[in-house]
Amino acid sequence: MIARYTPPDFADLWTSDKRFKVWLEVELAACEAMEQHGLVPEGVAGRIRSKNIVLDAARIEAIERTVKHDVIAFLTHVEELVGDDARWLHRGMTSSDVLDSALALLMVEAVDKLIVRTDAALEALAKRAREHAETPMIGRSHGMFAEPVTFGIVLAGHFAELKRGRERLERAREGIAYGKVAGAVGTYAHLSPEIERVALAKLGLKAEPLATQIVPRDRHAEVFTACAFVASAIERLATNVRHWQRSDVGEAEEAFTAGQKGSSAMPHKRNPILSENLCGLARIVRAAVAPAFENIVMWHERDISHSSVERMIGPDVTATLAFMLDRTKGLVEGLVIYPANLQRSLDRAGDLFFSEGLLLALVEAGMARQEAYVLVQRNAMKAWRGEGTLRANVQADTDITGRLSSERVSSCFDLGHVLRFATTMVERALA
Amino acid sequence: MIARYTPPDFADLWTSDKRFKVWLEVELAACEAMEQHGLVPEGVAGRIRSKNIVLDAARIEAIERTVKHDVIAFLTHVEELVGDDARWLHRGMTSSDVLDSALALLMVEAVDKLIVRTDAALEALAKRAREHAETPMIGRSHGMFAEPVTFGIVLAGHFAELKRGRERLERAREGIAYGKVAGAVGTYAHLSPEIERVALAKLGLKAEPLATQIVPRDRHAEVFTACAFVASAIERLATNVRHWQRSDVGEAEEAFTAGQKGSSAMPHKRNPILSENLCGLARIVRAAVAPAFENIVMWHERDISHSSVERMIGPDVTATLAFMLDRTKGLVEGLVIYPANLQRSLDRAGDLFFSEGLLLALVEAGMARQEAYVLVQRNAMKAWRGEGTLRANVQADTDITGRLSSERVSSCFDLGHVLRFATTMVERALA
Amino acid sequence: MIARYTPPDFADLWTSDKRFKVWLEVELAACEAMEQHGLVPEGVAGRIRSKNIVLDAARIEAIERTVKHDVIAFLTHVEELVGDDARWLHRGMTSSDVLDSALALLMVEAVDKLIVRTDAALEALAKRAREHAETPMIGRSHGMFAEPVTFGIVLAGHFAELKRGRERLERAREGIAYGKVAGAVGTYAHLSPEIERVALAKLGLKAEPLATQIVPRDRHAEVFTACAFVASAIERLATNVRHWQRSDVGEAEEAFTAGQKGSSAMPHKRNPILSENLCGLARIVRAAVAPAFENIVMWHERDISHSSVERMIGPDVTATLAFMLDRTKGLVEGLVIYPANLQRSLDRAGDLFFSEGLLLALVEAGMARQEAYVLVQRNAMKAWRGEGTLRANVQADTDITGRLSSERVSSCFDLGHVLRFATTMVERALA
Amino acid sequence: MIARYTPPDFADLWTSDKRFKVWLEVELAACEAMEQHGLVPEGVAGRIRSKNIVLDAARIEAIERTVKHDVIAFLTHVEELVGDDARWLHRGMTSSDVLDSALALLMVEAVDKLIVRTDAALEALAKRAREHAETPMIGRSHGMFAEPVTFGIVLAGHFAELKRGRERLERAREGIAYGKVAGAVGTYAHLSPEIERVALAKLGLKAEPLATQIVPRDRHAEVFTACAFVASAIERLATNVRHWQRSDVGEAEEAFTAGQKGSSAMPHKRNPILSENLCGLARIVRAAVAPAFENIVMWHERDISHSSVERMIGPDVTATLAFMLDRTKGLVEGLVIYPANLQRSLDRAGDLFFSEGLLLALVEAGMARQEAYVLVQRNAMKAWRGEGTLRANVQADTDITGRLSSERVSSCFDLGHVLRFATTMVERALA
Repeated sequence: MIARYTPPDFADLWTSDKRFKVWLEVELAACEAMEQHGLVPEGVAGRIRSKNIVLDAARIEAIERTVKHDVIAFLTHVEELVGDDARWLHRGMTSSDVLDSALALLMVEAVDKLIVRTDAALEALAKRAREHAETPMIGRSHGMFAEPVTFGIVLAGHFAELKRGRERLERAREGIAYGKVAGAVGTYAHLSPEIERVALAKLGLKAEPLATQIVPRDRHAEVFTACAFVASAIERLATNVRHWQRSDVGEAEEAFTAGQKGSSAMPHKRNPILSENLCGLARIVRAAVAPAFENIVMWHERDISHSSVERMIGPDVTATLAFMLDRTKGLVEGLVIYPANLQRSLDRAGDLFFSEGLLLALVEAGMARQEAYVLVQRNAMKAWRGEGTLRANVQADTDITGRLSSERVSSCFDLGHVLRFATTMVERALA
Repeated sequence: MIARYTPPDFADLWTSDKRFKVWLEVELAACEAMEQHGLVPEGVAGRIRSKNIVLDAARIEAIERTVKHDVIAFLTHVEELVGDDARWLHRGMTSSDVLDSALALLMVEAVDKLIVRTDAALEALAKRAREHAETPMIGRSHGMFAEPVTFGIVLAGHFAELKRGRERLERAREGIAYGKVAGAVGTYAHLSPEIERVALAKLGLKAEPLATQIVPRDRHAEVFTACAFVASAIERLATNVRHWQRSDVGEAEEAFTAGQKGSSAMPHKRNPILSENLCGLARIVRAAVAPAFENIVMWHERDISHSSVERMIGPDVTATLAFMLDRTKGLVEGLVIYPANLQRSLDRAGDLFFSEGLLLALVEAGMARQEAYVLVQRNAMKAWRGEGTLRANVQADTDITGRLSSERVSSCFDLGHVLRFATTMVERALA
Repeated sequence: MIARYTPPDFADLWTSDKRFKVWLEVELAACEAMEQHGLVPEGVAGRIRSKNIVLDAARIEAIERTVKHDVIAFLTHVEELVGDDARWLHRGMTSSDVLDSALALLMVEAVDKLIVRTDAALEALAKRAREHAETPMIGRSHGMFAEPVTFGIVLAGHFAELKRGRERLERAREGIAYGKVAGAVGTYAHLSPEIERVALAKLGLKAEPLATQIVPRDRHAEVFTACAFVASAIERLATNVRHWQRSDVGEAEEAFTAGQKGSSAMPHKRNPILSENLCGLARIVRAAVAPAFENIVMWHERDISHSSVERMIGPDVTATLAFMLDRTKGLVEGLVIYPANLQRSLDRAGDLFFSEGLLLALVEAGMARQEAYVLVQRNAMKAWRGEGTLRANVQADTDITGRLSSERVSSCFDLGHVLRFATTMVERALA
Repeated sequence: MIARYTPPDFADLWTSDKRFKVWLEVELAACEAMEQHGLVPEGVAGRIRSKNIVLDAARIEAIERTVKHDVIAFLTHVEELVGDDARWLHRGMTSSDVLDSALALLMVEAVDKLIVRTDAALEALAKRAREHAETPMIGRSHGMFAEPVTFGIVLAGHFAELKRGRERLERAREGIAYGKVAGAVGTYAHLSPEIERVALAKLGLKAEPLATQIVPRDRHAEVFTACAFVASAIERLATNVRHWQRSDVGEAEEAFTAGQKGSSAMPHKRNPILSENLCGLARIVRAAVAPAFENIVMWHERDISHSSVERMIGPDVTATLAFMLDRTKGLVEGLVIYPANLQRSLDRAGDLFFSEGLLLALVEAGMARQEAYVLVQRNAMKAWRGEGTLRANVQADTDITGRLSSERVSSCFDLGHVLRFATTMVERALA
């Protein structure tokens, strides 16, 4: 999580202050549940809450340097602030009860923020997709001119993929909203499943069906894989923007602000740096998937090897993805699309992309597919070498005109026909 | 996919024969849909089906060496076998319509097989978890004796994790069951969304809401991540088996067959080689996640960089995971659990694990938590150094006996009490 | 390792036959060393060698199914073939002495083959780089026209990167050429460092300075990382070929064979499928790096978790990379370069890429850098919008012509000047 | 790079202040080289140096927010501070000349610091290895008691592996010490190879033999892979410490400071948290290898997708590894080794580990290997089941005593004999 790629709300989310505050929330929720069950005298949590204490992260970290245990340091500091009542906190609990339930709350909050941002990026994509639902462009496969699509269809495809990413975030959010208040090795030795249920419900969490000392880490890994899916969806879009903006293509480009300078050496250049940056950041988000999976495997009832990993990838991945989503939204909203240049590419593609319809017409007219293929290819290759258009060549090829009327040949070269489903497709994807 | 780690049904699933057979299924389903919509004369698909042709994979591959295009080679061979009717196949379609719909069918079949195997492994885990729901063992955190659990609780935790893996397989199966019959760049230039819907429904697939030339690859990546989750769940179990079987621990071991020899140099050794093998194979399955994510990003309407990756990881990952699941089932069923050795470890742990209850009793009796901690720790450390048991030390410590009656101290050392929820926990997880 | 991507010599290298043959070599080398040191009667190895036995891999694997131990199965079979003398083999050795020394021999052989292939690819790159050392093309940064380079410079850059890859293969070869004949946990309990040295020297290997039961796996991981570097170098080249071949660019393309068909739907298309394939295969090779690193960590003196991983990635990575190198050589040799299209791109770039020289001339003439930047940019932006060339605009801009003479302006627009080091650069890189 | 895992010198190394300072160094070195070659008036660099300007990172970043280009912002700020002379800086250069040469300097400094720390960790390992060269312990393979080693041998093995890591750091340092002063696309359009050579030599760097716009990224990837090797070497050591400290084993443990508290619930526990932390951090370091490889592939003469990745993994990986090395040194120095417990494990292993010598004695006495194996195994299995020691069983087994004298049997059970090479091995590895 570096300042450059961290939205302010994620900077706040992953501070020590916030973390300790959430720990206290967990302790108090557990305390209240225990009060209900008579394990703790009534009124303790209420009294502590009424003091509105402000935890001092620096103080906790100073204590930790001595005791080398973060939750003990935290509890010691709480005791400094609230006095005697503090002895009722953490009753029968283990550090992981606090840490993991609190981490669940932070992850839920992070994922919620990511979903909101995904929605904003989706909205931008939907708007531009509708705007250009009928703007023709040459589709490309293998980087080669293929058959026509529309700019709106392409954007709708990115919308659909990002939306699947959003669904994965939602499922991951559901999966990560599990906490644990079950004591040392998760056996409720000094607690009960019911106390846990009540405590976690107060926090908006469910109880882990069978925890070890900790909440199992496949839940966390699912959040990281969901993030990687969203990052990959963005990466595919950003890659396409980079292609469109190429000098050779020039079909669309990132918005360019007034004072912006493209290159120290070449003052005229306008580079797709937002999109390139998104491609790089996607690598960072994807790279967290491997350690997230490694974190799943632990020794016996738990080891703490996962902890340092989570301290780093938790903030890094969620903040970076939030930044990516914000940037994607701006990128899409500001994307300058050049219909004239889209048309220029269509013109450069010539009429070769109509070869498919021609092939079908020949087959329909009774020719074997491979034979038709050879006929079409020979005219296509001529056109591709710059000798005439496919249409002109075909109309001069008696092997073809012997099979197809001039009108039938003409009907094969109709752009409106091949794109007749464009708006249907866009609307179906955005539905 | 190497023979050693490939179950026979997966060897069959990923043959060229099977692949070409599925391609033909897709072509015929599309043909039938087109017949219904008048694009192809009625009866074509029926006549082809009635010929019961057997495709010759070697012949197709020989043609491919000339034309350098697999689907064209396939269609050429079909034409060799069925003659004139073949010209109606593949009408308006692009190779990816066949390839991706067929791949979806193969992946669905693979995932279905994995789910069946997961169920078998789950069943084995459930049986053993119930069998040992009340068999006490010392829980370990950080590899250190912690508090007691039961062997059944531990197995139920592995069950719950593997079951979450199964849910991910199910979701991935739903996500991969999408095909495409939409032509070159997915625009239905010579087809229609309705024809696609009908064709794919015959195959048990849904239509991709917005395809490019191909079905988007996040669907495939989700299958590979789901596999990685299952593999990781197995890896955590296998890691624990390795720990239990250690000479230092000896709490459980893999079944050992009569003729098996453990080591060429040390004839007496019985090594947890199944579990070690499972840990290694998990690395293989997890390693496919990174290229699966890289496959998502393509240029424009498609490139073919993903294809070679899928040719390798598709069979490798699914077959390896199937092998792992089979092995896991056998491992769990055959696992030899030694209650006497479990008790020996509990004895070695001494009574230190009761310190928590003691701490709570002191807090309950009015002592500040940190003060109680110091009191308990000093007695615990003595016991840990071999000077008396915790119980004996505590009962000789007047700072404690001044607060707690002898009965209250005794009640803190009750194994049955701390494990009172064991069966509840196991049944809740297996529910 | 699938047939499609496996050169025949790598198919042979990774057979069971070959593996067992190398095991026998290791056993015999060790036996001879022990004969020299009196641990084994003289003549044993010679007698066994003279029998020219042919090991039956199927028989060994059948025995293994009973004894569940590969080396014991192998030794049992050798005993079947050579009789009594076999009892002297493997004296004081452990399975890993055979397995790891043999694996080293196979890996050395694999890497040697890869180096030979890398040399062939390098030779192809050198030839084409020299051929086009002075063929100008527009350089691109961020996909945007930047300043001119030559095609030879670009190829020489790929040469230099691939050559660094070769150096890494060489170092990895040196690092992997270590074996072990030190017994169970590497302590020479029934052997000696000197016997090990002699045995391994016969095989062309060095002795591991301090083995555990096995040769440490960082040596193997280094081979896999070296392979990933070579694959990445190829991937960068293949990515550029894909860019050059784009319909929008058309500067170079893969050789297209006579019968080859580009697309089932679009008969005219010639797709860069070799390069796309290389990009996909690079993902496979790179994906092996993660499990290779995971293999380094083992429990105590060894565990066998690495073994299954190596069985899969050893053949897969080396064979796939060999295939990639062969394909790269062919790709480079056959690459069709279109100087006319290179010139067309240069023309499209206009003369904007001379802006840098102009900027420098203004600074030289006393203007502050940022002021000069503004002047150049305003003329560049006009040209970029299609209003005149940079040169014409500049010569009409009195703020510039007030500073620079017409001759000085002209000298800024000399292609030969900016490329004056082209051949020097190419030759330096190929040196 | 989070504070918790960042040594202070790495926090300083990766600040904006430091980065901009190094940029200025590069600009001045280039300026001096240009002065020598007459491209810039003599004295410029000297005058700028004499001003001892202090760059204001906040100011540069503020300018960057407008111009959206870091190097232009930097140059603008330099011009603010040094006035007119600034126009001579960056002459004919491109941003990447500054960025990549500066990054090389920072990476070299980072790697140098890592090497110093590796040496400190190596020294600690060497000291402890010598100290315990002759301290016997039971070796374990597959987690099972195998044959004896010494604690010093084991540490020497970790030393040897870490030292190979150091060699990889050294090679990576050599490979990363390359800069570039070659202008926009690396063609020296307004510079020369000789100017570049001189400029970089002043900085202690070599000139990239053939750069594109940037220094190729395989150099950077090699630094990250070297770091991953060192991290893996540490991870293997840390994994072993975790095993030794297990309650079941107790052979060694991390130093435990006075105030340290092991667990909030179990006051007596002393957990191997340093080692667990090292295992987690190793995952972080290893995870950077994948994006580092992805960074190698760029479009044409460069794209900027790598930049964001390097901003994150450059500091993260080097700082984290530095922290790991410091922690490893402390871990090794403070490791508490318990010879009595090592002996206890040896005793638990019984005398089974002498079976190998017995097997050899039987073979020597003329028995076929497999026959001997069966004889030894039956006695070993009895001992393993708790019926007598191997030695006692063997001496009662007439099939054996018929072949071997009582003295010969006794000589097979000599611990000193099997460990006779211990010191030799340790010294050889430390040499």
